[in-house]
Amino acid sequence: MNARRNFLKGIGAAAAVGAAAPALAETSPDVEWRIASSFSPALDLIYGGGETLARTLADLTDGHFKLKISPAGEIAPAGEALDAVESGKADGAHTALAYAWNKDPSFIFATATPFGMNARQHTAWLAEGGGGGLIDDLLAEHKSMAIPAGNTGGQMAGWFRKEIRNVQDLQGLKIRLGGFAGKILQSLGAEPVAMPKDGVFNALQSGSLDMFEWLGPYDDEKFGQPIAKAAPNYYYPGWWKGGMQLHLVVAKDKYEALPHTYKSALRAACAVADRDMLAKYDAANPAAVKRLVVGGASLRLFPQDVMEACYKTASDLYEQLGADNPHFKKLADSYLGFRADQYLWWQVAEYSFDNFMIRQRHAKT
Amino acid sequence: MNARRNFLKGIGAAAAVGAAAPALAETSPDVEWRIASSFSPALDLIYGGGETLARTLADLTDGHFKLKISPAGEIAPAGEALDAVESGKADGAHTALAYAWNKDPSFIFATATPFGMNARQHTAWLAEGGGGGLIDDLLAEHKSMAIPAGNTGGQMAGWFRKEIRNVQDLQGLKIRLGGFAGKILQSLGAEPVAMPKDGVFNALQSGSLDMFEWLGPYDDEKFGQPIAKAAPNYYYPGWWKGGMQLHLVVAKDKYEALPHTYKSALRAACAVADRDMLAKYDAANPAAVKRLVVGGASLRLFPQDVMEACYKTASDLYEQLGADNPHFKKLADSYLGFRADQYLWWQVAEYSFDNFMIRQRHAKT
Repeated sequence: MNARRNFLKGIGAAAAVGAAAPALAETSPDVEWRIASSFSPALDLIYGGGETLARTLADLTDGHFKLKISPAGEIAPAGEALDAVESGKADGAHTALAYAWNKDPSFIFATATPFGMNARQHTAWLAEGGGGGLIDDLLAEHKSMAIPAGNTGGQMAGWFRKEIRNVQDLQGLKIRLGGFAGKILQSLGAEPVAMPKDGVFNALQSGSLDMFEWLGPYDDEKFGQPIAKAAPNYYYPGWWKGGMQLHLVVAKDKYEALPHTYKSALRAACAVADRDMLAKYDAANPAAVKRLVVGGASLRLFPQDVMEACYKTASDLYEQLGADNPHFKKLADSYLGFRADQYLWWQVAEYSFDNFMIRQRHAKT
Repeated sequence: MNARRNFLKGIGAAAAVGAAAPALAETSPDVEWRIASSFSPALDLIYGGGETLARTLADLTDGHFKLKISPAGEIAPAGEALDAVESGKADGAHTALAYAWNKDPSFIFATATPFGMNARQHTAWLAEGGGGGLIDDLLAEHKSMAIPAGNTGGQMAGWFRKEIRNVQDLQGLKIRLGGFAGKILQSLGAEPVAMPKDGVFNALQSGSLDMFEWLGPYDDEKFGQPIAKAAPNYYYPGWWKGGMQLHLVVAKDKYEALPHTYKSALRAACAVADRDMLAKYDAANPAAVKRLVVGGASLRLFPQDVMEACYKTASDLYEQLGADNPHFKKLADSYLGFRADQYLWWQVAEYSFDNFMIRQRHAKT
């Protein structure tokens, strides 16, 4: 009888543990999400941002919440990552939301806009200036939401066969440059050309293409062919990408169904990827730009009249789009208002410090 | 016998479960750390960085790993946070490591140095340029290690009763400014004055103090008294704090004893606090600087000869300290080398973009 009682006790203990298991499973369920990256692994720092995110998330959840990152083209083409999330083909996407600008031009404010803000200001707008909420309002129609997850910092404007001396030099210029910036240069006389990446080098050499835009020194150097040989004029600033903000876009219902700790873990992992990617680009670009110059690139600043003409065209375009599209108007008002205040302050502490440090470097060399 | 066998099986199951329990306890033990903040809650964004960190960490660990943040003075005075961690009075500190510069001047490289780097460049140095490892080498003697956890961005140089027209105007200037920057201005003729914060306003009014340094617009506005009434010349750039990097300093043995997920959670929570604090300062400073100007502050740029004299003095001081102190030499070589490369690249994409945006804002107004 004693043995029997102990036996039941044993069963009881086992049963109690059995009952506890579902509760444990609820707080730490095994979740695996398929994430469509909009990038190729060859862009190792941008694509790598998704991997940093996945690794951090697995660390934070003891391996219970995993992301499987798929390169662009595997689940969806680069430009259709948002569609993949909306249709359920993917649970999330690591992407530049501006790629969805043909759905609604308002999406550009999530990533980068011509004459927008630099990376740090953009981060402040998303987190503290109401930008993140406005982007999520926009994504609600697509049953999605977005978390900032990486920034490249300011990029270059790209590679030009010939020098650009004034606005007239844009006339008839055959450019491989999409989106908003392509539209702006087009309205100033340039001719956007669609062309697969692999054809670019030969097209630049033969003269069937005059200008090609990629990213910044670190990625441009690894383009595969030495672009400087075909188009040595490497222009800056990349006025349509003062920074390039990436997001993790996720299906809203799937996010809402996550346990509280998983939501926190996903957000924190995105924050880690966000800071990490920018630091990696900042650390890698200086050496890359030096090597590119040794390899024949000429760093050139756009003439002031070209910058001003592009600025005016961009401002007109913002106004025009805002008149037709209430989403766009709301985002533009918030974004451009925040930008004005940011640069009012930036010129004081940040810019004046950078200015002196840059002048001092020149004085020494 | 059958019952007996089942009984043993039952015991076996219970024992197996019993053995599993400590493993569970090991992966999610309840941990609470006392953190000495070097700041007063009145500096709500800096002090708040510690609170953001604590809240995020609790969210990530389902409340199992908690930080109890204590204001400066409770566990240790602001400047002795590192000692508190070393002696075990605190498990960690949310602090500016530069406060320990009288222990070893090398600590300035963790936080901000005269004519150092801006916040983003400093982050890149810590994460990707070897800076974080060098800071941890320095902290090993204090049985500690550090994780970046907040940055204020570039600050102002402070409030001056009179205009500074040239280097001669620094002669005999009574300044309330400590650390490295105080030493530099002292060697150019200024006289550092020690004075409790509460006496500053009256001292400025009476003329027993000529200059007072605090942080940036957002914090300076909440100083308690309208500083602009007593010392209206608000100078920039704050050349000794192109950014102000905060760290969570923790006892190394306690960190090493944490389960892997807790280590990841602590690092991720610090990354969240790091990005969050900078975004909050960036969002809050523009409106604050406008209100300060309305309240009588005159924004003034240091004359070029003052900046150059300070730069030269700082460079000489770096060299001098490096000759005596191998720690300092190692850190200075790494830091200043990284800075040179950063500004080489910064002037291309980032600075030229900011430059155009600032000029354009002026053209419009």
